[in-house]
Amino acid sequence: MRIKIINPNTTVSMTKAIEQAGKKFARARTEVFAVNPSIGPESIESFYDEYLSIPGLLEEIIIGDKDEGVDAFIIACFGDPGLLAAREVTKKPVLGIAEAAITTARLIAPNFSIVIPLHRSRRLSEEVVQMHGAKDRCISIRTTDLTVLDFDKNLEKGLNVLEEECKRAVEEDGAECVLLGCAGFVTFVEELQQKLGVPVFDGVSPAVKLAEGLVDMGVETSKALTWSPPEKKVITGFSEILQP
Amino acid sequence: MRIKIINPNTTVSMTKAIEQAGKKFARARTEVFAVNPSIGPESIESFYDEYLSIPGLLEEIIIGDKDEGVDAFIIACFGDPGLLAAREVTKKPVLGIAEAAITTARLIAPNFSIVIPLHRSRRLSEEVVQMHGAKDRCISIRTTDLTVLDFDKNLEKGLNVLEEECKRAVEEDGAECVLLGCAGFVTFVEELQQKLGVPVFDGVSPAVKLAEGLVDMGVETSKALTWSPPEKKVITGFSEILQP
Amino acid sequence: MRIKIINPNTTVSMTKAIEQAGKKFARARTEVFAVNPSIGPESIESFYDEYLSIPGLLEEIIIGDKDEGVDAFIIACFGDPGLLAAREVTKKPVLGIAEAAITTARLIAPNFSIVIPLHRSRRLSEEVVQMHGAKDRCISIRTTDLTVLDFDKNLEKGLNVLEEECKRAVEEDGAECVLLGCAGFVTFVEELQQKLGVPVFDGVSPAVKLAEGLVDMGVETSKALTWSPPEKKVITGFSEILQP
Amino acid sequence: MRIKIINPNTTVSMTKAIEQAGKKFARARTEVFAVNPSIGPESIESFYDEYLSIPGLLEEIIIGDKDEGVDAFIIACFGDPGLLAAREVTKKPVLGIAEAAITTARLIAPNFSIVIPLHRSRRLSEEVVQMHGAKDRCISIRTTDLTVLDFDKNLEKGLNVLEEECKRAVEEDGAECVLLGCAGFVTFVEELQQKLGVPVFDGVSPAVKLAEGLVDMGVETSKALTWSPPEKKVITGFSEILQP
Amino acid sequence: MRIKIINPNTTVSMTKAIEQAGKKFARARTEVFAVNPSIGPESIESFYDEYLSIPGLLEEIIIGDKDEGVDAFIIACFGDPGLLAAREVTKKPVLGIAEAAITTARLIAPNFSIVIPLHRSRRLSEEVVQMHGAKDRCISIRTTDLTVLDFDKNLEKGLNVLEEECKRAVEEDGAECVLLGCAGFVTFVEELQQKLGVPVFDGVSPAVKLAEGLVDMGVETSKALTWSPPEKKVITGFSEILQP
Amino acid sequence: MRIKIINPNTTVSMTKAIEQAGKKFARARTEVFAVNPSIGPESIESFYDEYLSIPGLLEEIIIGDKDEGVDAFIIACFGDPGLLAAREVTKKPVLGIAEAAITTARLIAPNFSIVIPLHRSRRLSEEVVQMHGAKDRCISIRTTDLTVLDFDKNLEKGLNVLEEECKRAVEEDGAECVLLGCAGFVTFVEELQQKLGVPVFDGVSPAVKLAEGLVDMGVETSKALTWSPPEKKVITGFSEILQP
Repeated sequence: MRIKIINPNTTVSMTKAIEQAGKKFARARTEVFAVNPSIGPESIESFYDEYLSIPGLLEEIIIGDKDEGVDAFIIACFGDPGLLAAREVTKKPVLGIAEAAITTARLIAPNFSIVIPLHRSRRLSEEVVQMHGAKDRCISIRTTDLTVLDFDKNLEKGLNVLEEECKRAVEEDGAECVLLGCAGFVTFVEELQQKLGVPVFDGVSPAVKLAEGLVDMGVETSKALTWSPPEKKVITGFSEILQP
Repeated sequence: MRIKIINPNTTVSMTKAIEQAGKKFARARTEVFAVNPSIGPESIESFYDEYLSIPGLLEEIIIGDKDEGVDAFIIACFGDPGLLAAREVTKKPVLGIAEAAITTARLIAPNFSIVIPLHRSRRLSEEVVQMHGAKDRCISIRTTDLTVLDFDKNLEKGLNVLEEECKRAVEEDGAECVLLGCAGFVTFVEELQQKLGVPVFDGVSPAVKLAEGLVDMGVETSKALTWSPPEKKVITGFSEILQP
Repeated sequence: MRIKIINPNTTVSMTKAIEQAGKKFARARTEVFAVNPSIGPESIESFYDEYLSIPGLLEEIIIGDKDEGVDAFIIACFGDPGLLAAREVTKKPVLGIAEAAITTARLIAPNFSIVIPLHRSRRLSEEVVQMHGAKDRCISIRTTDLTVLDFDKNLEKGLNVLEEECKRAVEEDGAECVLLGCAGFVTFVEELQQKLGVPVFDGVSPAVKLAEGLVDMGVETSKALTWSPPEKKVITGFSEILQP
Repeated sequence: MRIKIINPNTTVSMTKAIEQAGKKFARARTEVFAVNPSIGPESIESFYDEYLSIPGLLEEIIIGDKDEGVDAFIIACFGDPGLLAAREVTKKPVLGIAEAAITTARLIAPNFSIVIPLHRSRRLSEEVVQMHGAKDRCISIRTTDLTVLDFDKNLEKGLNVLEEECKRAVEEDGAECVLLGCAGFVTFVEELQQKLGVPVFDGVSPAVKLAEGLVDMGVETSKALTWSPPEKKVITGFSEILQP
Repeated sequence: MRIKIINPNTTVSMTKAIEQAGKKFARARTEVFAVNPSIGPESIESFYDEYLSIPGLLEEIIIGDKDEGVDAFIIACFGDPGLLAAREVTKKPVLGIAEAAITTARLIAPNFSIVIPLHRSRRLSEEVVQMHGAKDRCISIRTTDLTVLDFDKNLEKGLNVLEEECKRAVEEDGAECVLLGCAGFVTFVEELQQKLGVPVFDGVSPAVKLAEGLVDMGVETSKALTWSPPEKKVITGFSEILQP
Repeated sequence: MRIKIINPNTTVSMTKAIEQAGKKFARARTEVFAVNPSIGPESIESFYDEYLSIPGLLEEIIIGDKDEGVDAFIIACFGDPGLLAAREVTKKPVLGIAEAAITTARLIAPNFSIVIPLHRSRRLSEEVVQMHGAKDRCISIRTTDLTVLDFDKNLEKGLNVLEEECKRAVEEDGAECVLLGCAGFVTFVEELQQKLGVPVFDGVSPAVKLAEGLVDMGVETSKALTWSPPEKKVITGFSEILQP
């Protein structure tokens, strides 16, 4: 089974960390590989960034579907950018990492908090929580002063800042599970898990496990109506790949 | 890995069918076994039935946790009876089949209908949909004139009745996915899937796949507060097993 | 008129206090009597406890319905355990004390807080508030370090702890009414009412008054569908009383 | 105990019917009397009517509170006009009949429909259902071609029309209880109850029973903040009675 | 185009300030004039005040509709009193200032706080937020110790108190826009806007702009059903103007 | 004042019709002009189309903001694509036409239906209704067999199909206002308005009027946090214009 993880930003170091996280709990015969589009923003912190990451992301979905024999896709950004569109262009299962983290958290904890990098991205997280029907289970979203790239550049400082917010989530908000709301946080999971005493997740590992399960079952995205393939039409200014 | 499926009613033929469904997509090294409690109702169609199935169910959870080296539990009744209590008595993941079906449906379809046996059990399904945060995604619950045991006794008639309701769900309600809302329906999945043209699930197979994923990741139920072990106290009139 | 109050735990001292509270505002010709099942937990603080209290509780409902000429039933635990099942096995009105407290609070205050014993039981209270449609009116649920039995054993300490949380509910949360979320708290109502300056309720007294009203009107539980009697079927391992 | 029912419209025949309904299940020592304001509309079918009924209604509340030794008030129009204001001008309990009907229905049925006179008043009913937190339990609001006064003038025709809509509520909508959404419908309750086979209520009788219960308990409206007495100020153009 | 603003309280100084605010951004050819009813309360802080302001307000709507050639109406109290009734008695657009402020805030900010005079009026604001579908966008309602008339009498103190609450809304609650929840606050808008660094609105100016837009488009209130003219009927004790 | 309308698809005939609609109710001194990006899909019917329209749309926003002296922007596609991102890249007000239509409908009708081209796009409309907080007011979304371009090519057939669905919305669903859910429908508004007897809107005209109002007031998008400018970062593969 081949699972393609797409880091929708263009920062290669993050793509590598994500691939590692994806492989961590993958089964022996599951081939996990991560890519990032060649076009798009180097990190995703605003709606603007998010939308500009989607064309490159969709290219990677289509390539994976047509040419790479991919069995399932994972979108590795905690805003789940382009998720609904990705499901239109392939029958293969597509999972967002926010979706995977939230889905998994619900199975093992009565509530959860999400910790994300930058204050400004709070609304992006609120939208994703709402989309996955978890508004009642998400008791807080905590944010920091650091950007996505700050965390990538200074791991130690990042870990400290993150730990502090996670602790507040547990102690002040009553979180019984903490979700790390950035694909770049995969490197911090283990250390935080040990320190916090409640389950801590990133979304990449859960997404891989969910994807394996769907592929095992032979389940594919419903093409009945909403996620049927996009109508044939001219789309100007984008690569051949993106022509429906 | 050992996954214990508990059919919370006492009808052995259903337990066998459930075990088969549980094994269908399980991995080679996953040992799946299904049991039913020796005490409780022979089918579950009312809140009354549901509550009387729970003590026996909880015994099976506790035995599995203490004595059988079980890695994950599945409660195989579409009302997910006793789910929240089961999570209190073991650290091992516990999944309900309604939870598993709904969780999986959300990943591959924009909405779904649930088809259950008896008209009277509608509210049980409404509660379970609400509990799993899927009220916005569940566009209809369809019910029949047949009891759980009717379906067990007359497979052909059952299939016909079920097919009719499933078709109505798709054609009249606009369902893009259909969930079979009874553990006893596992035998009908394949045939209905072929006839309907939209994804059709029972909850047993998805639950096994979700369970495998959680066990692979080493994730356990959060014991922070809500689902911590029940307080030590005297519980009169129940078996030694059920003493906390 | 005969009203049977069932304390679903097995602690006899609580049953007595509950009976007294039930009689406090009952009319002269209303016979109020309280019992507790002989089986079940000695207090209810977890979902586990709650479910194990229900079989004994249902026995008492059935006995009351068949043999004791009871006109209405009250379930005297603030989680309203087994309420929906109890309504299936008798046509006589059945009320939960959380239901009664919440129902009554809505009639005389724009919002309310609930104060319950143990931190871990918060989710039980959240569920019961949701079930009775009062999520918008319940502005906080406050919890303490003491168990149900702690309160029973040390009344003075209990009162102090309770008073403190009630005050916080009023002063910090803006509660305009306080509900005491444990049947065992009936002994504290009067003193707290005097100290707090906002209405304070337990659920037992309101339940008796609601029950009297329903019986006066000759109103019975609708047997149209959802709460019709459980289907005839074999239920193994429980008393003859519980066979439908 | 004295319970004052205020029919907020000026149609005396309705006031009489309401008084009779109020006395029907009242206890021997409960004195129930109904009045209507001398000012206001002869029936209430629009928001316009509703608002113009409120000053006269509030006068009757204030007179009842100051001069008539009233222990509890009932507002006998299914839109519960002025309910929140009435609670500001007296400490005595005030109940709306929609509130009472909805509150009581919840205790004995899993859902209900409301049948009201005129199509145009649907939104008034929607608002009142929302106000009392019963949106999830109210499965339909059914309306007719007849005005409030049409029902008052032609009882036989009224009954037939009403019966038809009630039947639709039960058979098409699945209502397990029917609420008659007009104080003028009190005369039809018994006949409809017999014909429909599910509980049928007006709101007047339940309101009397709820009021009796509150008075027995000595419970009064919380004056903590929201429903504290209106601030002293000049109110021009209204009677002396209405000066706060 | 003539826009009639109705201050529903009888305080003339507020009416003048409101008229000024209404003219501030009105177009050259838009004639804006403000009146207040001769009957009703001098300020609106309770449900009681609100309801007693409505008859006088409705008179002004009807006069404006029949005799004054008014093209659109604005109700200048932040509780939007009588809004739904006003829409019944005229086809001309009617806007509430809470509605206008909330509507406009949604267009330029992801969330907002409302600051109102008196603590007790919080629920009035909650109702109006709910009515306009903005519960998810309104992150806090802040209140003060001062009455509406206190603000009118002591502008400097009023400004200081208001500034403090607005700052808390921004700094503690994370408000990205602040709505001044009292028509009397129109005088403070500019100063607060400068001090706060986030958009600050009253509702009067936005209401005028929305009204101009609707009139330009020739759009009128739908008379299909809900807001069709009130039925002809006798309404006793009110002026000739108010007879439907 | 300059208002720039951006038709986010590349079909020039639609852009022209939109411009005309935009000018219809604009004030004499309001300069309205419509453009479409040179890149993107020729119509928008899927999430895929929607996302691929956004980069070109954002370019037009940025150009308008920096080089064209634009005072307000309108996104003329009923899914309001890219709305939240557009608000990040300019301080000038940005309105979506779904937002404008829904906002305006709420001011003059108690409910509304939306009629859109293709069945498959229903979910896009559901999302936009949810985003603008109008779920309770939108009583139906009606869809047709025709694509956006079908309507553009065969106006007469389009009108007939549209009229039929609009009538169903009014007669079967009880819509008191109908919103035409496609920018291409601007040509049908007048004729449908005359035939239906309830208010009928497209979103373009209302958006222009809302924009004029905001500009008159000098109101700009809050830059406090959520919609502050995107962080400086490298965005590969897009035009210079799109570099933050």
